[in-house]
Amino acid sequence: MKKIPVMEIFGPTIQGEGMVIGQKTMFVRTSGCDYSCSWCDSAFTWDGTGKSTLMTAEAIVEQLQQIGGDNFSHVTISGGNPALHKGIAALVDLLKEKQIQTAIETQGSIWQDWLLDIDEVTISPKPPSSKMETNLEKLDEIIHKLSDRNISLKVVIFDDVDFDYAETIHKRYPDVPFYLQVGNEDAKTEENHNLLQQLLNRYEWLIERTIDSQVMNDAKVLPQLHTLLWGNKRGV
Amino acid sequence: MKKIPVMEIFGPTIQGEGMVIGQKTMFVRTSGCDYSCSWCDSAFTWDGTGKSTLMTAEAIVEQLQQIGGDNFSHVTISGGNPALHKGIAALVDLLKEKQIQTAIETQGSIWQDWLLDIDEVTISPKPPSSKMETNLEKLDEIIHKLSDRNISLKVVIFDDVDFDYAETIHKRYPDVPFYLQVGNEDAKTEENHNLLQQLLNRYEWLIERTIDSQVMNDAKVLPQLHTLLWGNKRGV
Ligand code: SF4
Ligand code: SF4
Repeated sequence: MKKIPVMEIFGPTIQGEGMVIGQKTMFVRTSGCDYSCSWCDSAFTWDGTGKSTLMTAEAIVEQLQQIGGDNFSHVTISGGNPALHKGIAALVDLLKEKQIQTAIETQGSIWQDWLLDIDEVTISPKPPSSKMETNLEKLDEIIHKLSDRNISLKVVIFDDVDFDYAETIHKRYPDVPFYLQVGNEDAKTEENHNLLQQLLNRYEWLIERTIDSQVMNDAKVLPQLHTLLWGNKRGV
Repeated sequence: MKKIPVMEIFGPTIQGEGMVIGQKTMFVRTSGCDYSCSWCDSAFTWDGTGKSTLMTAEAIVEQLQQIGGDNFSHVTISGGNPALHKGIAALVDLLKEKQIQTAIETQGSIWQDWLLDIDEVTISPKPPSSKMETNLEKLDEIIHKLSDRNISLKVVIFDDVDFDYAETIHKRYPDVPFYLQVGNEDAKTEENHNLLQQLLNRYEWLIERTIDSQVMNDAKVLPQLHTLLWGNKRGV
């Protein structure tokens, strides 16, 4: 069985963003990414500054239960890009057996059949400010394969160009629930107080942009709750 | 046709709480409430300090379009308790005709057949700190009638006794998506800075309570985003 490179396992905490915002959940963060976004807030998963451990699905579930005890029924798999790892199939099966709900976030650049077995899939294509380029044919294919599943699109917004990109994506997949998320311009600072004000200001700006955009009439606009609460602290 | 007492119409803005948190929406706030919660944050709808206007469904839609133009496709009906008003049936029909999505929040004390035609129904029974008492038989009946609709339960939490109440409610209706919401202890202050810190502290406390509660494993815990952004300001 293929092992999974795990960067951190933590929780229970809440999901701070996206389609299941507020959900009580455990996190399994895998390492490695096929992207290198300019503003990546989990660069430690791929830039060599973090240390990962190769684990079997069983070992991961064991550690989840050791940390979370009986106080969880939901696990979020994040990264990096978890869709790099074939081995997650076994983890998803094992969690399903235990009637634990699963959620994932991936940028939509790589397909894995196990995505079909995840309860909540967030696909987060990266806007121009990331310096990455979206392979739209690949994204089409992935969204098509997941079309009868519980999925959503989420685009992080830093500026007007990103907003235009988000409009293009939303128009391309009008039937997929669409989330706009405030970008964190300083994913390193420990000055939580300034960060909080800055994030709320950016959130207000993003709401105004959304209000003015007819394309976004059915969109949802959200902050990252964990960043409002805990700044850039890891493992919360 | 029965007219509707309207306190305010505003938007587009975002829905700051509950099952469609972040959703771009217009608001129609009706006046009148069969409750008088100790901490009600819209007491002006029922305590005589606000002025309402009796409006037909057509006049409401006209005003929505005048204010919102083409920049909305979602309307939230709030109060007070909107379930006091039979006349909302015509409003819901009219919005449906125009393919506008509808959401509502009501405490679950009064039934209206038009609740069946609302796209997203939030039922928010009030915990002990409100000084109100929940009629559980009535709540059973309402939730039963809406059982195949898109509904959620939301309980605002101020203290441990409220949390115990929330656990009781969640256990009584285990299949209804369940939201815990931070209570705003000072719905009058204009000191937004202190309010923000206080709300974030209370949110952190509520997350910790939820993490420790096995009953709440599948719950969502949320703040009021509009209060974090704009304090107690009305009409935003
Ligand atoms: S796709 Fe996600 S994890 Fe990968 S570099 Fe971009 S932000 Fe970071
Ligand atoms: S039910 Fe809602 S509107 Fe009515 S008094 Fe209570 S908080 Fe206020």
